Amino acid sequence: MDTQLERRVVPIRWIGNVIHGHLEMLDQRLLPVSEVWHRMATAEDVAAGIRDMVIRGAPAIGIAAAYGLALGMREYVGRDQGEQVASEFERLALMLAKTRPTAVNLFWAIERCQMLAASFEGSSRELVVALFAEADAILHEDCENNLRMGRFGAELFNPGARILTHCNTGGLATGGYGTALGIIRACHAAGKLAHVWVDETRPYLQGARLTAWECLQEGLPATLITDNMAAHFMKLGQVDAVIVGTDRVVANGDVANKIGTYGLAVLCKHHAIPFYVAAPISTIDLATAHGDDIVIEQRPAQEVTHIGDRRLAPEGIGVAHPAFDVTPADLVTAIITELGVARAPYAKSLVELIESA
Amino acid sequence: MDTQLERRVVPIRWIGNVIHGHLEMLDQRLLPVSEVWHRMATAEDVAAGIRDMVIRGAPAIGIAAAYGLALGMREYVGRDQGEQVASEFERLALMLAKTRPTAVNLFWAIERCQMLAASFEGSSRELVVALFAEADAILHEDCENNLRMGRFGAELFNPGARILTHCNTGGLATGGYGTALGIIRACHAAGKLAHVWVDETRPYLQGARLTAWECLQEGLPATLITDNMAAHFMKLGQVDAVIVGTDRVVANGDVANKIGTYGLAVLCKHHAIPFYVAAPISTIDLATAHGDDIVIEQRPAQEVTHIGDRRLAPEGIGVAHPAFDVTPADLVTAIITELGVARAPYAKSLVELIESA
Repeated sequence: MDTQLERRVVPIRWIGNVIHGHLEMLDQRLLPVSEVWHRMATAEDVAAGIRDMVIRGAPAIGIAAAYGLALGMREYVGRDQGEQVASEFERLALMLAKTRPTAVNLFWAIERCQMLAASFEGSSRELVVALFAEADAILHEDCENNLRMGRFGAELFNPGARILTHCNTGGLATGGYGTALGIIRACHAAGKLAHVWVDETRPYLQGARLTAWECLQEGLPATLITDNMAAHFMKLGQVDAVIVGTDRVVANGDVANKIGTYGLAVLCKHHAIPFYVAAPISTIDLATAHGDDIVIEQRPAQEVTHIGDRRLAPEGIGVAHPAFDVTPADLVTAIITELGVARAPYAKSLVELIESA
Repeated sequence: MDTQLERRVVPIRWIGNVIHGHLEMLDQRLLPVSEVWHRMATAEDVAAGIRDMVIRGAPAIGIAAAYGLALGMREYVGRDQGEQVASEFERLALMLAKTRPTAVNLFWAIERCQMLAASFEGSSRELVVALFAEADAILHEDCENNLRMGRFGAELFNPGARILTHCNTGGLATGGYGTALGIIRACHAAGKLAHVWVDETRPYLQGARLTAWECLQEGLPATLITDNMAAHFMKLGQVDAVIVGTDRVVANGDVANKIGTYGLAVLCKHHAIPFYVAAPISTIDLATAHGDDIVIEQRPAQEVTHIGDRRLAPEGIGVAHPAFDVTPADLVTAIITELGVARAPYAKSLVELIESA
């Protein structure tokens, strides 16, 4: 399968050569109404893009951070002052790591670049070239891994599958193919997909704005619903499975993902519907034992009370906005990775998968 | 308890005397950003107000329809052509009944006026006076019944209660006190309320726009959340009960209510949290045997894809918009009415409650 062909929808692109080129980021806050690409000239630009959610999606923000490090170090080309370069690299890595707290891919991608830099011998120009190559590699490996994950995932389905998904886990959230939505695309390619239910995913509306848009781009048969309709269609027997992505899977198999995921998992259990998690190996965090140990990002109240500039709720009302929730492993039917499918007990199966690589 | 004092928030008001006065309806579509009262001069105005959701909430639309019939017949005062008056009455009743299909209060209120008209002996002017008196009675009985329901409901709680509610079931949805929110108000008055979780209630945002606003008006300690956060806070042990209103309870105890209600009931079961339904006797429909027999209103896609004029989702995406769902009786801990609290088996307990009156 040709990865390039599959990348109709991408969140980030590099224009030109390493030294004189620049990064562009698709502004996902403005989709689907307008498609605006922002030019990102510095690591600070990239950090702001992640923090302000120009780009989002666990794999995509990892990729963006890697390019951010390369961009940041480009400013040091020719200076060749060893110690200063090293301390600047650490400053940029820390700045990028602080942008979002929940997704582990961000830290994974930054660490990968840190390992490269720590052992690097050569000029600062050569380091920049190597960092760009590493960012490119992270992006392309992500696409390849998504395609593999898609094939493993599609094997779990029979023709006629009606799959519900939450948030956006497609090309926009990754290097260009998708995790949960990648599996749905793979089902479609295999002639097995009857229908996608797209949760709008309040408050940020990644489903309504991004997944619905990607479904139209990819020609997937899709119906947009508000999050609170999922139970109704499950009860009517119109949902065969739920597939979600994840920002972090911890050692016991607990899954952090977009707020609303946990409720879907409970609904799946009640309706005896499989609940699948699509997790690139880079999202698996064996260093964290239990879901309770995951930091849940609390985002601004304004994202709940407003749509753009438009106020929905009265001024002065209290608001909670946890951006993620944690689904206990016992509600997860299987975790689909690029190395294969893990099932309970996850403490064992996740380690086995990773060691199989 | 003084009903008048409790009616700070009302959806409808009559200005002036029966013959020269007029009806005003608060435009709930514009709340909480602006408070606009529309003058309603004819039955057609009232029907449009119900259909277009200027007013909503099962008890409130029943009350509005009763005033609509009185307004409509006022145009016939002095004509005294028996048969024409009767057929005009039936035309208006049919028009008002066709505005919304799910809530049974609408039909109940119209039938109550029809029974009055059918057996009425007197001039058309006297009929209009009697119809206005009937509409007033429906409104004031609704308030009295809400207060009674509130007292029965509050008895179910201990001090420190943290209650989650869905949609708007307060003063705006009723004659001015509330059903589910009325019980929450009664808990607050009894010093038992620690906290209200307000589901924003997509797509129409009755929670974010109306319930949040009422909570501020009434001084209830409240936190607004998106619907998909409810499960998360249940898992954290921060929700002691869910109370919802209903558009129709059928003979077996199945409950039709705002989309999202069924999912909450499933989540309550999973977390062993009581799930209560506040149901005025006027919403109980013993003539319908089973929840599957309830007509579920399908509303326009635009209410899902847009907020006001602002497009959220891409053009061309398929959309589903069932406005209600049905919660099976076996997920309902108790049904709270103005005559007392019914528990399973509802086929028996609902009949006993109604016969006790």
